[in-house]
Amino acid sequence: MHIGLIGLGKMGNNMRARLRKGDIEVTGYDPNPAVSDVASLADLAAALPAPRVVWVMVPSGAITTSVITELSAVLSEGDLVIEGGNSRFTEDFKHSALLAEKGINYVDAGVSGGVWGLENGYGLMVGGNAADVERAMPIFDALRPEGPRAEGFVHTGEIGAGHYAKMVHNGIEYALMQAWAEGYELLDSRKDIIKDVTGTFEAWQRGTVVRSWLLELLVKALKEDPEFKEIEGYVEDSGEGRWTVEEALNNAVPVPTISAAIFARFVSRQGDSPSMKAVAALRNQFGGHSVRKAD
Amino acid sequence: MHIGLIGLGKMGNNMRARLRKGDIEVTGYDPNPAVSDVASLADLAAALPAPRVVWVMVPSGAITTSVITELSAVLSEGDLVIEGGNSRFTEDFKHSALLAEKGINYVDAGVSGGVWGLENGYGLMVGGNAADVERAMPIFDALRPEGPRAEGFVHTGEIGAGHYAKMVHNGIEYALMQAWAEGYELLDSRKDIIKDVTGTFEAWQRGTVVRSWLLELLVKALKEDPEFKEIEGYVEDSGEGRWTVEEALNNAVPVPTISAAIFARFVSRQGDSPSMKAVAALRNQFGGHSVRKAD
Amino acid sequence: MHIGLIGLGKMGNNMRARLRKGDIEVTGYDPNPAVSDVASLADLAAALPAPRVVWVMVPSGAITTSVITELSAVLSEGDLVIEGGNSRFTEDFKHSALLAEKGINYVDAGVSGGVWGLENGYGLMVGGNAADVERAMPIFDALRPEGPRAEGFVHTGEIGAGHYAKMVHNGIEYALMQAWAEGYELLDSRKDIIKDVTGTFEAWQRGTVVRSWLLELLVKALKEDPEFKEIEGYVEDSGEGRWTVEEALNNAVPVPTISAAIFARFVSRQGDSPSMKAVAALRNQFGGHSVRKAD
Amino acid sequence: MHIGLIGLGKMGNNMRARLRKGDIEVTGYDPNPAVSDVASLADLAAALPAPRVVWVMVPSGAITTSVITELSAVLSEGDLVIEGGNSRFTEDFKHSALLAEKGINYVDAGVSGGVWGLENGYGLMVGGNAADVERAMPIFDALRPEGPRAEGFVHTGEIGAGHYAKMVHNGIEYALMQAWAEGYELLDSRKDIIKDVTGTFEAWQRGTVVRSWLLELLVKALKEDPEFKEIEGYVEDSGEGRWTVEEALNNAVPVPTISAAIFARFVSRQGDSPSMKAVAALRNQFGGHSVRKAD
Repeated sequence: MHIGLIGLGKMGNNMRARLRKGDIEVTGYDPNPAVSDVASLADLAAALPAPRVVWVMVPSGAITTSVITELSAVLSEGDLVIEGGNSRFTEDFKHSALLAEKGINYVDAGVSGGVWGLENGYGLMVGGNAADVERAMPIFDALRPEGPRAEGFVHTGEIGAGHYAKMVHNGIEYALMQAWAEGYELLDSRKDIIKDVTGTFEAWQRGTVVRSWLLELLVKALKEDPEFKEIEGYVEDSGEGRWTVEEALNNAVPVPTISAAIFARFVSRQGDSPSMKAVAALRNQFGGHSVRKAD
Repeated sequence: MHIGLIGLGKMGNNMRARLRKGDIEVTGYDPNPAVSDVASLADLAAALPAPRVVWVMVPSGAITTSVITELSAVLSEGDLVIEGGNSRFTEDFKHSALLAEKGINYVDAGVSGGVWGLENGYGLMVGGNAADVERAMPIFDALRPEGPRAEGFVHTGEIGAGHYAKMVHNGIEYALMQAWAEGYELLDSRKDIIKDVTGTFEAWQRGTVVRSWLLELLVKALKEDPEFKEIEGYVEDSGEGRWTVEEALNNAVPVPTISAAIFARFVSRQGDSPSMKAVAALRNQFGGHSVRKAD
Repeated sequence: MHIGLIGLGKMGNNMRARLRKGDIEVTGYDPNPAVSDVASLADLAAALPAPRVVWVMVPSGAITTSVITELSAVLSEGDLVIEGGNSRFTEDFKHSALLAEKGINYVDAGVSGGVWGLENGYGLMVGGNAADVERAMPIFDALRPEGPRAEGFVHTGEIGAGHYAKMVHNGIEYALMQAWAEGYELLDSRKDIIKDVTGTFEAWQRGTVVRSWLLELLVKALKEDPEFKEIEGYVEDSGEGRWTVEEALNNAVPVPTISAAIFARFVSRQGDSPSMKAVAALRNQFGGHSVRKAD
Repeated sequence: MHIGLIGLGKMGNNMRARLRKGDIEVTGYDPNPAVSDVASLADLAAALPAPRVVWVMVPSGAITTSVITELSAVLSEGDLVIEGGNSRFTEDFKHSALLAEKGINYVDAGVSGGVWGLENGYGLMVGGNAADVERAMPIFDALRPEGPRAEGFVHTGEIGAGHYAKMVHNGIEYALMQAWAEGYELLDSRKDIIKDVTGTFEAWQRGTVVRSWLLELLVKALKEDPEFKEIEGYVEDSGEGRWTVEEALNNAVPVPTISAAIFARFVSRQGDSPSMKAVAALRNQFGGHSVRKAD
């Protein structure tokens, strides 16, 4: 099989390597000529056997929309686009409709695995019609982890379902990370009795209810930097956690832990909190409680 | 009526003034001779007509227990102690039992009003038996705000009920303050369209569903220091918010807003968050996301 | 002054009455002929003196957009539309642009007060340019509560600012209500010591930090139905609470109490919770804990 | 090695079996003669070689205290008691002091693994002095999972540290479960696009960031009962989640996800919510919103 891959950043580059290892021929395109196999999207289209399969792996939002739009011009009826970026699932409805005007097929793919995917394989959730998904199966098989297909790949539903599932996956991930973080702070807060925080997490890796990959990563991180002395408690968030809460609001789903995880990140990035200034001011007003003067 | 008042700090001193304005004769005792009317608790007991009524207004915890214990030695059968500090209601069970051994009666009183109480009167919630509460009514009438008694005073139940009600009052107060604070930050975050944050809060003081004294205080604070430039977002908490959540846990009552308000205060006091260090470390492990180096 | 008022439902009808009481001449239009003063929007336009002022008070969303679109056809350059419904502030950008094409001016107004507005007046937050707001001031003065203008009215900023402020107002309101509700449940959960729940709330109406209109309403409701025996704990939500959280997400503002209040409403409407089914299933899997069989 | 084991319920019975498989001689005692090896605690003491080692595995609270008290009478100086139940760590301070009066040594052990422990081994966290822990190491090695000792066992600190670590472990577990549950509800809420909820979770088992044992259990549960049709969303909580939040309050640690998980369980057990009755009543008061009549 010979496919095109657009976007050769940290993720795309690793995926190209894993695909090639899995005997998929890959022609990659990236605006950066240092990593690109061809000079343009038109060249990419020309280099691929028809009907073509093109995997798009670029930043979500305007860039993805722009690439999809350009592809609608250089691809032909019967070609298949797989959109594997971190797009919001609602974008898939627009992108697939745009390509459908030209008779170009569309599958959306949620991809999990981060920097470990090259070695471990990528967890895949895809949306689209059965024929398109079947057609791309050799690609999915090359990307997904070893082991039973059903444990690393799912055709989860209609167009948009792959990105929806990935969004929920990331929402859960936010809450799982926050849960671990609260546990860390609880152990860390009682150093008078807990003498080995890292060792405690390490001992949970076998036999316990909480054993998991995030726990293993936490142990690894603590061994590299016990007490996180080198790290600031400042945490970015990508779009998917926010989208998860927005979808929860749209569908009246209560998500107290996922939202708490996101709010904790927001707070972590504030030099001083406007909210807590207001609370301090109120306490001062009614109770005469002293406030700390800002510098 | 002539009563004793123990504890002449910020609250006790104001209460003595208001009681005297209400024609209650007050002999005050405080370890600080500069404000005390008598030299010792024994002198206080000697100065009061039997059966005595003594109001205790000292910091909750060990100091209150110590004062109650000393009073059990200097008071006599038939005397009445009113414990008006911010004690946990579970303390009332111990304190009343200790005094009951000597035949001394006990009423617990939750007191709201802060520094405004001298002028506006104090909201009062009391627990104890009907006869004891009735006996102390002239004191409550002097302390409570003008207007119908039922709108500023309640005999809310058995011993402990006054402090339980006050604890819940403060738990609610924490959540109300946090709600206002979140609203402030939301207005403050969109200065591109909201040109008058202070004026917006000011305009809610009449006719709206949210009108309240805390809103008035927020307007007052914003007028004194628009955008809270002089205030740091650092907020202490006294015991009562924590006790409220503990009681909620004991009684299986969900309190998501009250607990959120307390946790926000905890975070406000952290230089750097151990939790968020852990989240940052995890993100770095699985996604190669860069972290901020601590200084 | 003579204005048009579109939408004569529960809110619009009361507002017409209050405006007339305030010596504003009002021609009302509603699709329901039983309450309408004129037969059509065209008739409404014909009935008003130029340059016209028209207040739109219809359900937010498609209906408001439809009315604005129709108005752009029947109004003329220099007329002024005041959009007073519960619209999302982002709609104002579209609606004002649509009318601007015809030279029609636009002010958005957030209106608080509910069924009490007729009697107490309506809290008003408006967005738009200064000249338009000034022109409509007699209307605002008729609608707003008695007392200083600044305590019941604000020109809060640019177009959209009125609805943004109203959205935040409602978000705060959600959290305030939840705070009171948690306090109610805490008092209600300890009937062994709290003998007078209604009386406790009643006693907080004067002198306390938490005194507010919502507290007064809670007392009123409890007097009508002590222990809420006649009421089911099922709570709808209108759009504004959700929008508040969405805007918080857009602007990285942590809103733990507002979101908790909304999630509590979502849960209140679920016959059985999918989330808690999943938790019960997990406990059963790892701990052999028994589960309750669904009927 | 020959030890005593007190408590042969679901956990204790399995542990006896695993210990014997690991070549530890075990004399078990239980009030239920059908499972007990001896007739009384005195007989147990008589059956063990001195200095004795006795593992206590009974329900936390009064029963554990009672067993410890009885043991202080039948054991001798130099014996060792390992308290492996789900006790609050603060109990360890009392229990160890009680036994220390007789010169009896004490180790507390947090034990994770539930019904799977017999087969997979138990994750162990222990507190106590190094000599006592070393002495009991053959027992820990028999109980813990296969693999490196450090991945299934930790000597985490002083007396109480084992139970503190287990408490935090369970607190984290609560939040992890709730995170999975929210994700389940989010997938379940969009069946219009997600056609294979079970398959989606199944596909996350390899390669993804969220892979974990709880995920595997969720997949297992969904395969047994897709959509959880047989299960009611009613979830008990044992003490440890509540203790975790109480300790968080004691140490000013923010735990928004752990507390949210516990509150969700509280709500799941309420037929009708007092809180939400109050919110419904308030909405009715100010907005005339209709309420649902309770049956």
